[in-house]
Amino acid sequence: MRILLAEPNIKMVHVLSTSCSLRFTSSWKSYSQPLNSTTCPTSLSLQTFKSPFRKLVLQAEKPQRSCTVCATTFPITDCGPHQRSKEPSKPQRIMVIGGDGYCGWATALHLSNKGHKVAIVDNLVRRLFDHQLGLNSLTPITSIHSRIRCWKSLTGKTIELYIGDVCDFEFLSETFKSFEPDAVVHFGEQRSAPYSMIDRSRAVFTQQNNVIGTLNVLFAIKEFREQCHLVKLGTMGEYGTPNIDIEEGYITITHNGRTDTLPYPKQASSFYHLSKVHDSNNIAFTCKAWGIRATDLNQGVVYGARTDETEMHEELCNRFDYDGVFGTALNRFCVQAAIGHPLTVYGKGGQTRGYLDIRDTVQCVELAIANPAQPGEFRVFNQFTEQFSVNELAALVTEAGKKLGLNVETVSVPNPRVEAEEHYYNAKHTKLIELGLKPHLLSDSLLDSLLNFAIKFKDRVDRKQIMTNVSWRKIGVKPKTVTA
Amino acid sequence: MRILLAEPNIKMVHVLSTSCSLRFTSSWKSYSQPLNSTTCPTSLSLQTFKSPFRKLVLQAEKPQRSCTVCATTFPITDCGPHQRSKEPSKPQRIMVIGGDGYCGWATALHLSNKGHKVAIVDNLVRRLFDHQLGLNSLTPITSIHSRIRCWKSLTGKTIELYIGDVCDFEFLSETFKSFEPDAVVHFGEQRSAPYSMIDRSRAVFTQQNNVIGTLNVLFAIKEFREQCHLVKLGTMGEYGTPNIDIEEGYITITHNGRTDTLPYPKQASSFYHLSKVHDSNNIAFTCKAWGIRATDLNQGVVYGARTDETEMHEELCNRFDYDGVFGTALNRFCVQAAIGHPLTVYGKGGQTRGYLDIRDTVQCVELAIANPAQPGEFRVFNQFTEQFSVNELAALVTEAGKKLGLNVETVSVPNPRVEAEEHYYNAKHTKLIELGLKPHLLSDSLLDSLLNFAIKFKDRVDRKQIMTNVSWRKIGVKPKTVTA
Repeated sequence: MRILLAEPNIKMVHVLSTSCSLRFTSSWKSYSQPLNSTTCPTSLSLQTFKSPFRKLVLQAEKPQRSCTVCATTFPITDCGPHQRSKEPSKPQRIMVIGGDGYCGWATALHLSNKGHKVAIVDNLVRRLFDHQLGLNSLTPITSIHSRIRCWKSLTGKTIELYIGDVCDFEFLSETFKSFEPDAVVHFGEQRSAPYSMIDRSRAVFTQQNNVIGTLNVLFAIKEFREQCHLVKLGTMGEYGTPNIDIEEGYITITHNGRTDTLPYPKQASSFYHLSKVHDSNNIAFTCKAWGIRATDLNQGVVYGARTDETEMHEELCNRFDYDGVFGTALNRFCVQAAIGHPLTVYGKGGQTRGYLDIRDTVQCVELAIANPAQPGEFRVFNQFTEQFSVNELAALVTEAGKKLGLNVETVSVPNPRVEAEEHYYNAKHTKLIELGLKPHLLSDSLLDSLLNFAIKFKDRVDRKQIMTNVSWRKIGVKPKTVTA
Repeated sequence: MRILLAEPNIKMVHVLSTSCSLRFTSSWKSYSQPLNSTTCPTSLSLQTFKSPFRKLVLQAEKPQRSCTVCATTFPITDCGPHQRSKEPSKPQRIMVIGGDGYCGWATALHLSNKGHKVAIVDNLVRRLFDHQLGLNSLTPITSIHSRIRCWKSLTGKTIELYIGDVCDFEFLSETFKSFEPDAVVHFGEQRSAPYSMIDRSRAVFTQQNNVIGTLNVLFAIKEFREQCHLVKLGTMGEYGTPNIDIEEGYITITHNGRTDTLPYPKQASSFYHLSKVHDSNNIAFTCKAWGIRATDLNQGVVYGARTDETEMHEELCNRFDYDGVFGTALNRFCVQAAIGHPLTVYGKGGQTRGYLDIRDTVQCVELAIANPAQPGEFRVFNQFTEQFSVNELAALVTEAGKKLGLNVETVSVPNPRVEAEEHYYNAKHTKLIELGLKPHLLSDSLLDSLLNFAIKFKDRVDRKQIMTNVSWRKIGVKPKTVTA
């Protein structure tokens, strides 16, 4: 048995699993290495050779009835394993877990619009959180059933719907067996840091729900669809704010004269962010142990509401959160400006993070799916387009508000979080650009449009929802309820 | 309000939490920095000054009704923040979670013997695992009730007993309110890597049980005993086998011209090991956010059975696992040698890990308690005394066996795990030595005694238990049961 690998410049070969003894040879180079079941998985770096390999042969020493070899080749150009062909993506069967949420709904529509066969898996618990906490989307949103019916009537495209909880493995198994996904986009987690810091039971819920849900997805892929590509939503918040540049998932460290490339150290700062770190670690292990193919999208703070697809009909309108629990910096500022509420900056406002337009969220997911991770590869992309400090965002919104005749004030409020308010921040985000991402950067006209969007719905704003009473330091063990 | 810190050489000050605005000055140096609630927690490195500080004053700008400042100073000698006074430890109220298990029972007895007031908290589920998997300790062990009664009758010392699950917060709250611990030693987790790889439900159980149990312990400390020192059992397996030296919890990285000290990158290789990584990340966050004082003991592989206290009476005998699920390398080899079963080396046997005698486990925990972490400090010790490869251990047991007239053979069996079998391994373990640990190194006489111990109980060995049928790669989603 011979497995031939041919690419212009082969830099590294990962042999992930094998049930037979293999010999690794090249036709042009005098390099060979025995590989057997006890040395796999292994990575063979070919960078020590002066000229690149163009062809490699993995060869079994003797005939085998069955033999599994998974290998990836990296082009020797510096862009790593993710720079693949940019041909238009082929239609795939894509399961969007959490497809009724803010990013999930926009993504499901976008992928469906691009010709993929989409199924939404969601237990709709995000809507329950709103009921329980007395919150509401700025925008009126219709039921998932209405949304999907509307999409079908507009475009003729069917989005399948599986309502249930991915923490329930029996349910998840049935969805896998029924839909047979080629890719799973996993948004289906409790996604608010403040929510995870409300009280003990929400902290525990967040970690249990997110970690166990993701474990179940990994087991389902292994059991039912082992070639399925997992596209998992992580967060830039996993990295915290280290005093060195943030790389995309891995960092090469030279220490006491030796060098290794290791997972980038994580310093998450809420039970929610921690749950994403736990997920990343779990996924990385299953890539190595089982050959799962996974892309971890460490997403920044998303702003905006409209995508091409949600604009097609008001029944497709996306949710837009401005409250103290689910609302995020820029979206919340726009709503505050629209209703004459001061922009509330937590503490000094030097907190710097990566941000992106929701239209780039859907584009990034599409790119990740079109250029899948290889079997056994745990690929990490930092998914954002620009960095801003909170003060910079407040200044931009103030300026944009002026043009619309709004008198925007900013106040500093005590920071409910535990975080550095003045810090170094320089996070890399080139891998998605290399795959073809065309960012929608935050411009004056975009801010105008965001503000006008907020103004359009300002009569729906409940001012009580804006300020949070969640505190990182004061979180207690008693269940917290909201007064009427 | 003034807080004076005086030590021979002050290298760094951590200001962990403050509810007031502070000014930081030194009597000898012209250095000051305003600190207020929005900049804390913060770390001030004083290493940029040529001569060390001897005195620092943290001073509030105006009178405060209440103000909390927690600061630690590091001596400028290289040994870090853990080198504190070595005076004999004062009696404390110590809760040992998982105190009926292998390490937990030995530790509970040792701490009780040293004059501490000890309470065991345990749901006894480790005994249930044995029933369910058809396993049994090499040694006959009595019930926890008999053990504690025996200890009382021998020494007059009372060990309190709380039977219940730390995942049940109502139960845990009651134990905290009733016992009021000064320190909590947390062994109460599912502790076997193979167990976590049996099937999906055991993988999920392991992460859920370990992560949620530890979260509950953290919440209980915050709510009921905020000064309580958490001594948490981690594992050296959290680090994996990087190609650089393993440090104790943190590593200083210089990258693109900037430097930071960050959590050491983790590469765990089973759902069990991953659960400990998740715990470490969760605990680190609560130290920073809430000022929890915690010591994470990244323990190596423990061997041996006897401690001074368990030797006092046969009813105090500790458990000793030799099976494929709970048995660990050296203990299992001794039992194999005793019954004439070949030593089973997984794969190439170059797997190198840190090891320690169970008498050092109890000593290390005692030292950690006697020299507690400071409020807000997340302290990590690598808890082992020597490194061995599996092949080296097999050779040592073979040699020791010969002297006892045993003909010991070794066979390589297919590795059920996914791990490197030949790798660099150099893990630091100086911090506990600096605190006063006097290691029991693996000597000929110790091996003799271990082998004789195994021979003494060899009629109790069930050969069926020795080999594992757990496979890292073949783990499935269907619940696995054991045939009779």
